[in-house]
Amino acid sequence: MLKGDDMINYPTKLNRNNVMNAQNSSYSHRGRGMSLEKDINDSNDYYLKTDRACIHKKPTPIQVVRVDYPNRAHAKIVEAYYKIPSTTDYNGVYRGKAIDFEAKQVQNKTVFPLQLIHPHQIDHMKRVIHHGGICFVILRFTSYNETYLVDAKVMIQAYEDENTKSLSYKKVKEAGKLIQESFTPRLKYLDIVDEMYF
Amino acid sequence: MLKGDDMINYPTKLNRNNVMNAQNSSYSHRGRGMSLEKDINDSNDYYLKTDRACIHKKPTPIQVVRVDYPNRAHAKIVEAYYKIPSTTDYNGVYRGKAIDFEAKQVQNKTVFPLQLIHPHQIDHMKRVIHHGGICFVILRFTSYNETYLVDAKVMIQAYEDENTKSLSYKKVKEAGKLIQESFTPRLKYLDIVDEMYF
Repeated sequence: MLKGDDMINYPTKLNRNNVMNAQNSSYSHRGRGMSLEKDINDSNDYYLKTDRACIHKKPTPIQVVRVDYPNRAHAKIVEAYYKIPSTTDYNGVYRGKAIDFEAKQVQNKTVFPLQLIHPHQIDHMKRVIHHGGICFVILRFTSYNETYLVDAKVMIQAYEDENTKSLSYKKVKEAGKLIQESFTPRLKYLDIVDEMYF
Repeated sequence: MLKGDDMINYPTKLNRNNVMNAQNSSYSHRGRGMSLEKDINDSNDYYLKTDRACIHKKPTPIQVVRVDYPNRAHAKIVEAYYKIPSTTDYNGVYRGKAIDFEAKQVQNKTVFPLQLIHPHQIDHMKRVIHHGGICFVILRFTSYNETYLVDAKVMIQAYEDENTKSLSYKKVKEAGKLIQESFTPRLKYLDIVDEMYF
């Protein structure tokens, strides 16, 4: 049994994960994806508060099976399961355009395995582009502590090539753009969006 | 204890609700909001499949507290709670623009009570408009079986007027546009979007 705190934005826990991130790479799988997620959420909060963009992480899709009502006002979910997401994790509005992206981090030093993206998510990316939205993937290589913004078309193309099972670190460096970090926002990813899409 | 089926898109259950909707207005509160949600989800599916738009319902935000791992592959959530949403329910991309909206249905014949919209959702609507997105509310008066598209600015203005606690049915008819229904899509709401925003 694991406390659900590991799965939600609980600052104390995440700060500990961040410390662990710097000191020790053997922290849990659940925690592994959290530091990038936290960095993006913090950046989105900053962008929201400074009126630069309105971008949010979508809630994790959960299939609710059973609910208890211990009292009139409160519903307690007692059986539920995580669902495979059919869209990407983040979306919103920026400079009049729809923004849509997925974020992933890997410990692997040489490749980003494409199996980390679900086929439904690739279909979704194609649709976003088709309808005129801006779509990309934010990829972090934790070994180098480098975070790249890669246009969704690069990801789609690699995904559709049957001989390609991964995007190499080299390819990500070439096709993507390194996202600068700062105190606020943590990840200055909209600067890259400005550069690449406007 | 209530089966969670009442809260998710479970077709059998929803069909029953729809029948009840037509025959009897005393069905449960949980089921009450579902027929509009189902109509919008079906319409979005149709718009998605016909390549007209890419619009999705966001997952319901749920705070996960405790997770069991009965086996390696499966995580079972055993304690979780519904959270108050900080954004609207639906968003996506249409004709190059970001689309963002909330949907509500009421049984009341004369007014839509503004308390059905959370303050955070009003703030969110303002931000979407500020950044150049298209934002509105889909309101259904179940007593008349009429569904209206009302621009978010009308909702925001009413919300910010301290003397206004509700939008009257008359005001909705004047300020909004009646959404035509059909077999597919169930609600032709993008026709109204074309008319009002393009």
